Amino acid sequence: MTKIFADRAEGLSGSAIRATFKLLADPTIISFAGGAPSPDLFPTGELEEISARIFRDNGVKALQYGITEGYGPLMDFVKARMVKQGIIKDSDSVVITTGGQQVIDLTARALVNEGDIVAVERPSFVGGLNNFRSYNAVLVDVPVAEDGLDLDAFEDILKKRRVRLLYTIPTFQNPSGITMSLAKRRRLLEMAEKYDFFILEDNPYGELRYRGEEVPTIKSMDEKGRVIYAGSFSKILSPGLRVGFTSARTDILEKMAVIKQIVDVHTPVLNQMIAYEFITHYDLDAHIQKSRELYGHKCAVMLDAMDKSFPDYCGYTRPEGGIFLWCTLPERFDSQELFNRGVENKVAFVPGSSCMIDLNKKYSEFRLNYSNSSDENIVRGINILADVIKNY
Amino acid sequence: MTKIFADRAEGLSGSAIRATFKLLADPTIISFAGGAPSPDLFPTGELEEISARIFRDNGVKALQYGITEGYGPLMDFVKARMVKQGIIKDSDSVVITTGGQQVIDLTARALVNEGDIVAVERPSFVGGLNNFRSYNAVLVDVPVAEDGLDLDAFEDILKKRRVRLLYTIPTFQNPSGITMSLAKRRRLLEMAEKYDFFILEDNPYGELRYRGEEVPTIKSMDEKGRVIYAGSFSKILSPGLRVGFTSARTDILEKMAVIKQIVDVHTPVLNQMIAYEFITHYDLDAHIQKSRELYGHKCAVMLDAMDKSFPDYCGYTRPEGGIFLWCTLPERFDSQELFNRGVENKVAFVPGSSCMIDLNKKYSEFRLNYSNSSDENIVRGINILADVIKNY
Repeated sequence: MTKIFADRAEGLSGSAIRATFKLLADPTIISFAGGAPSPDLFPTGELEEISARIFRDNGVKALQYGITEGYGPLMDFVKARMVKQGIIKDSDSVVITTGGQQVIDLTARALVNEGDIVAVERPSFVGGLNNFRSYNAVLVDVPVAEDGLDLDAFEDILKKRRVRLLYTIPTFQNPSGITMSLAKRRRLLEMAEKYDFFILEDNPYGELRYRGEEVPTIKSMDEKGRVIYAGSFSKILSPGLRVGFTSARTDILEKMAVIKQIVDVHTPVLNQMIAYEFITHYDLDAHIQKSRELYGHKCAVMLDAMDKSFPDYCGYTRPEGGIFLWCTLPERFDSQELFNRGVENKVAFVPGSSCMIDLNKKYSEFRLNYSNSSDENIVRGINILADVIKNY
Repeated sequence: MTKIFADRAEGLSGSAIRATFKLLADPTIISFAGGAPSPDLFPTGELEEISARIFRDNGVKALQYGITEGYGPLMDFVKARMVKQGIIKDSDSVVITTGGQQVIDLTARALVNEGDIVAVERPSFVGGLNNFRSYNAVLVDVPVAEDGLDLDAFEDILKKRRVRLLYTIPTFQNPSGITMSLAKRRRLLEMAEKYDFFILEDNPYGELRYRGEEVPTIKSMDEKGRVIYAGSFSKILSPGLRVGFTSARTDILEKMAVIKQIVDVHTPVLNQMIAYEFITHYDLDAHIQKSRELYGHKCAVMLDAMDKSFPDYCGYTRPEGGIFLWCTLPERFDSQELFNRGVENKVAFVPGSSCMIDLNKKYSEFRLNYSNSSDENIVRGINILADVIKNY
């Protein structure tokens, strides 16, 4: 046997991210590497009561096969909430997914042929990049400026090459924490129409704004059915439950549901019922408000520690929401080497290469997460990291 | 925009199966169409206690991101059980998946290029067929005889065409209920080596034997790493929880885990903890024994009703386990038309075309499920169906 793997799988490697996840398990390492919510926010007491009640009153429903599109009451709730938020119209539908990650997968599978061009942000989310790679898409990247994607640079690409899909996290972007301006969102939709491409708007952090003014989602202004929207309960309730959702124009949404059926049949019913019972019996908005306050505080703690300890040549974003910020060091730094030295000193982050389409170049940038560490560990970890940078 | 969907998604349609799932929701229809376990077997009381305890004692673990490969204690349990059953060796590993369906998806994604040939059984499982279609694989089918796959017919194909993967459900096959003989399993492994293809052994029903002698899994005799094994808790605990598992040689299993990470990050942790707590605190083998007895009884009820009411020209299998049997009518019958007439008379089944690689031909065969109906409904539904056949 000469070749084991399919071409699309051949070069795929998850080692950098997987290392990241595994580091989280080592309690002696201060990890700014993951993207996990604060465990302090998990409503374990409420869910103890909810899960017991589900099995007591409605256990067969929770354990039997369900409908691919989702658990009806949760679909209705998610749709009503998105309509109220102005993201979709009353004539739109939603599908519940196994986390927001699955929306990326279903979108790529439905829309992207091998060899098609997928435009991504530079930097972008590794789970998106690897997913498009796994369909043998051709990745091109577009820099993210302070107010989001550099649309002039993108238009230069669009004039020369036929782009099939743009993958963007416009609000509190992963990994940069940057939010795309309203003007850019509008222009992006016009460009999608003019150059005939789809937009996958991934919005897991959108509800986690702790300062500044709300910016409407791209989907909310989408009159031509160009946007596939990905939402998630991972950052506002629990990532371990794996409950996300999507909306798109009807033909695309239906195709995604057909694909979902042959991917995992349906998202676990129990998990959908738990999410539904939580958001109907408890105050979701109050819960989200608590998350915003906590993450706003933690972000401020991290930025304050960085302001005090990082050398002046370090640049970093100052997010208005979400759970990440992005550091840019002078070019002589290799963030992979910095990562190695960080781990030796018991502090971890995500090196820039994980967020880029070309994994093999050197990058002086890296991602920091502040949602999943105690205040004390944030200060301690940042001080260690500052020393690692100074001693580089 | 001239073309909406990727080539692989263009022709995909889930309507037949989805109609099936939706029929199950109509309480006036006696449905032999689904593949759902009996709700009488769901341990709702035990899971009420277990889920409350998980949130009380270990709630953060259940709600936080987990490791892609699975929840450690469940992985250990599944591996130990498979080693004890002789399916894998102590040096092998397992990965927990979001149902058995995901194993099909990960296998195809890792191993099958667009245009590669995937051999399937005739008839086969629609969720497998549609999955391979969704990777633009070329499907070829091999008839299933009374003792499993017709290996002479398969070898004729192998001599002419390069097959990449064989997809088989060798034990209590879906949809036929047929079990492949030990001799054929051995020969199949030799053929895989000789003709250089992989075998995806899908075994969700293997533990549900209610008569006859156990036949070793193909994986248990796999010395060369040719077999990817798919197992599931769907038919022995709950399908709604979506917990399955896989084992394969290390390089393939690792690649599948990398892909799983970009598909749904990990299987929900809560669901894995529930499965683990159930199988460690309760007697899984006793629970399975109860399932065997119930399905053996229901199969006998259905066969008895068919023996009494079906015309002599109807052929059908007499399974030794699992949850399906397969009917073959004379060629003048079109099982799709029979399905329509059945539904008019409030009885449903899966028409043969859903189980075939060519959906557009007419088939006189169909699938019956007996696990999810009351004894009374089995008898009533079979009598209605007998009349529909006689009046055709």
